Amino acid sequence: MPLPVNPALAATLAPPVMEARRWLTETPLPEGLELLNLSQAAPVDPPPAPMRAAMARAIEEDPGIHLYSAVLGNPDLRAALAQRMSALYGGVIAEDQVAITSGCNQAFCATIASLAGPGDEVILPKPWYFNHHMWLTMQGVRTVALDTGPDLMPDPERCATLITARSKAIVLVTPNNPGGVEYPAPLMQAFADLARRNGLALIVDETYRDFHTRDGAPHDLFTDPDWDATLIHLYSFSKAYRLTGHRVGAIATNRGHLAEIEKFLDTVTICVSGPGQMAALWGLENLEDWLAGERHEILRRRQAMIDGFATLNGWALMGCGAYFAYARHPFDMPATDAARHLLREAGVLMLPGSMFRPDGDPDGAREMRIAFANAGTEQIGSLMHRLAAIR
Amino acid sequence: MPLPVNPALAATLAPPVMEARRWLTETPLPEGLELLNLSQAAPVDPPPAPMRAAMARAIEEDPGIHLYSAVLGNPDLRAALAQRMSALYGGVIAEDQVAITSGCNQAFCATIASLAGPGDEVILPKPWYFNHHMWLTMQGVRTVALDTGPDLMPDPERCATLITARSKAIVLVTPNNPGGVEYPAPLMQAFADLARRNGLALIVDETYRDFHTRDGAPHDLFTDPDWDATLIHLYSFSKAYRLTGHRVGAIATNRGHLAEIEKFLDTVTICVSGPGQMAALWGLENLEDWLAGERHEILRRRQAMIDGFATLNGWALMGCGAYFAYARHPFDMPATDAARHLLREAGVLMLPGSMFRPDGDPDGAREMRIAFANAGTEQIGSLMHRLAAIR
Repeated sequence: MPLPVNPALAATLAPPVMEARRWLTETPLPEGLELLNLSQAAPVDPPPAPMRAAMARAIEEDPGIHLYSAVLGNPDLRAALAQRMSALYGGVIAEDQVAITSGCNQAFCATIASLAGPGDEVILPKPWYFNHHMWLTMQGVRTVALDTGPDLMPDPERCATLITARSKAIVLVTPNNPGGVEYPAPLMQAFADLARRNGLALIVDETYRDFHTRDGAPHDLFTDPDWDATLIHLYSFSKAYRLTGHRVGAIATNRGHLAEIEKFLDTVTICVSGPGQMAALWGLENLEDWLAGERHEILRRRQAMIDGFATLNGWALMGCGAYFAYARHPFDMPATDAARHLLREAGVLMLPGSMFRPDGDPDGAREMRIAFANAGTEQIGSLMHRLAAIR
Repeated sequence: MPLPVNPALAATLAPPVMEARRWLTETPLPEGLELLNLSQAAPVDPPPAPMRAAMARAIEEDPGIHLYSAVLGNPDLRAALAQRMSALYGGVIAEDQVAITSGCNQAFCATIASLAGPGDEVILPKPWYFNHHMWLTMQGVRTVALDTGPDLMPDPERCATLITARSKAIVLVTPNNPGGVEYPAPLMQAFADLARRNGLALIVDETYRDFHTRDGAPHDLFTDPDWDATLIHLYSFSKAYRLTGHRVGAIATNRGHLAEIEKFLDTVTICVSGPGQMAALWGLENLEDWLAGERHEILRRRQAMIDGFATLNGWALMGCGAYFAYARHPFDMPATDAARHLLREAGVLMLPGSMFRPDGDPDGAREMRIAFANAGTEQIGSLMHRLAAIR
């Protein structure tokens, strides 16, 4: 007799990134071509040397870094993030309206656990970030897909028609993963108004905020003194400071709701890793200029992607920003086959749109997500040559 | 309109340790007495200096430590732990039967998520580790309490009467938190047989294994070549190497079931912190003798607790081992009041038994958990004086 299996977990698909990794081991690359891996949007370099040195010093000299911290995060990090957010968004965000989490995925999981139980519904624009859909599925929460059309923008009026008595939240990811689009400030406001009118939470995941094309605040949601009655804001330190392996993210919302979230975090991880929290704080205090340079480089690559796709026949760029481009591909086959075709014939790995949409969604078969953040402009040039050459 | 709240989370009590911390800030200590904080079982010192130096070097020199690792953990750590477990337990535990988690709490959460959904049942001997009950509650899984009597030993026959069609697992924590008792090997075997006969998982949490009074394997469960058809084994690196702030634990079970657990881990944290994994591996490779010394010291303190309680009137020690003593208190008031009385009158903080039992359980009112691991024998002497003096 095998071990019992929770049916909700069995119904959850395995992480698509792992499937793509299996393709890599199975597929011979074309001769003479190096792999262009555009499947994942994670920094490949470590944090800058001064941050590493500061971390190493803290590991040796600060005993507290090795001990449990408060469940909602170190007070100095919470305070520094609240201050940074207040300055950036032009609103009042207090230290105790901010919690630190073991990455932004955990911020999302804790947020959903605090809002919705089995049978409840959460509205997710599609294409979506697959881990969001995975967590909803394993928690027995129904993902309600909000269609977005060719510009990948969610429509608040269409969203309004999806709200039922079981709806608990609307999720917006901006800049969007996988779509690469940035939601304009008025669109964000319209969703906040819609959520407030209906007593829903508006979950805004700004993991890629630091690479936004717009200088300053990307939206005005925090200027509302009552922002925390509707908004649950998610952030990640992973991309900004290259801290993926340390798992540091954050949630901002009202104090009472954070007390619910605290129960989840205490049970699931107890606290965030000490070196990760220390590094995030060090980054906030020391890496503002450095991060501006990182953003500049990403925006340069983004422009190279836009210019490159303009020269390609058959491909249609739907969105391009932060770490991702999202495009219609020209191949007369489903995207999963097209992805393996591209790997075999051009040595390029990108993820099929079907990974970011409900099972059987016809648009998923036509689309590709291209994570370009790690590709220099030379590699982007090579990508365009390879895509132009392949049939 | 406030944000929606998941009723299962609202029904989950806040972590008791936080309530105890509030008592500390509210209660004036008796004059001239220093606080004896026996509420939590976490190391208060950092890891040994050579480990800290190795971590600092890796932070500076190993770029990979800052990047995402595999969801189930670094292969070298998985291999080293599997090897250590095979040697200790005298069984065959393969690298791919072991996964690394962000602490042992997360190991438990992932395990439960893989086995049981809303409406299912999990059997927990009481008194229990409160985070286990918290996670079951917030997942909508029913905690079925297994009574243990004055020796704190769970009885397989009594357990058998609690099994229903919704039962998915039996949880054993040994050495026990909060009870401090060690379950004998034949008792463990009887529970494994019971679980197997009924198609349930036997979850064995050995967070405090390294401080067991018995040399060598504390049980024979891994000597069964089919151990992984029933057993899900949980472990923590937090206590062994003082890595609480790095969040490193582990799960051992069969490969197929780990693939389900992988979905949960990928969604909730993606991976375990790099420095934590590196340090756990370093500890396995370098700290065997050091850990033996740590164990020796804990066993010395345990003996001091046993000897001390033998001199006290009114107190009845029910269990004492690893980090915890569990005792009946002599006060004519509920344990929560007695805990605050002890803090106010004797400057001693221990946790009331009611935190480890179902709401309203009469035994909880009579009991106290005393986390003695951080108390030297001098402090244990002071504890006995204070307890002898107080009425």
